[in-house]
Amino acid sequence: MALEQYIRDIVDFPKPGIIFKDITPLLASPKGTEECLQLLINSLKEKQIDKVIGVESRGFFFATLLAHHFNAGFIPVRKPKKLPFETISASYELEYGTDTLEMHIDAIQPGDKVLIHDDVLATGGTAKAVCELVKQLGGEIVQVNFLMELSFLNGREKIKEYDIFTAINY
Amino acid sequence: MALEQYIRDIVDFPKPGIIFKDITPLLASPKGTEECLQLLINSLKEKQIDKVIGVESRGFFFATLLAHHFNAGFIPVRKPKKLPFETISASYELEYGTDTLEMHIDAIQPGDKVLIHDDVLATGGTAKAVCELVKQLGGEIVQVNFLMELSFLNGREKIKEYDIFTAINY
Repeated sequence: MALEQYIRDIVDFPKPGIIFKDITPLLASPKGTEECLQLLINSLKEKQIDKVIGVESRGFFFATLLAHHFNAGFIPVRKPKKLPFETISASYELEYGTDTLEMHIDAIQPGDKVLIHDDVLATGGTAKAVCELVKQLGGEIVQVNFLMELSFLNGREKIKEYDIFTAINY
Repeated sequence: MALEQYIRDIVDFPKPGIIFKDITPLLASPKGTEECLQLLINSLKEKQIDKVIGVESRGFFFATLLAHHFNAGFIPVRKPKKLPFETISASYELEYGTDTLEMHIDAIQPGDKVLIHDDVLATGGTAKAVCELVKQLGGEIVQVNFLMELSFLNGREKIKEYDIFTAINY
């Protein structure tokens, strides 16, 4: 079945007026997970990947599987104070205020071919911040991919200089 | 090389007096990740697994890989208010106060054969709470496994009725 069938709409989560796209039915389905993983893999075929970045925390699931498939290192990008070693950071704007993401300083070596994965492309702020982290360490961004894209938010405009792939489009 | 070589000691994290076991060098190494994954898989051989639970958030990494290997559903157990659908919860004691974990009510079907995975077995409080969640939904716990065990904290006493496996022992 279509991948959209594995995504559950949750009305008014995390706050009133928002329809949250719940990916847990997809994760709970080995068939759905495999189909989605193959879509992501096929979009990258024949490309070398040294590191796969997963963005905390729903980006961790498929990023881990992608890293395993490509025999690449898995790198977590996390909220502040979660990573124990020395970090670099990048901030991005929210509706009110800013938020920050961190990555370990030894996560990427200059020239590493890097795949960035997160669950949702919304406004693109998070993705742009992660791209900045990779560039700070001299990595080469091969692709930025997502399970889902909320196209009406036009987030891909913020990262348009990169190859972007999304498995499900809304 | 021995898996311990991929674990980095971070002194005084997250607070003074604690030596934190940083698994990010293991995750960044495809070879280390594969060795560790095979150890976990081999401990389970020939057993049927329907669901693999990963505990937020460092438990997500290997739980995702284990679910994929066993063609099982992946189920996240998370901190309060992170899961969007209806949840069940279980609390456990901390040094000061208590903490709570949640799981979606439709995550486990009665009779499901469940593997629980987390990164560290310390005092065993978290693991015991997750076992309670699985039992609330009628799941059968096949094994509780961990990347690391801090044996001096004697956490396995709290979950001694289950099969326990740890890849690295301290």
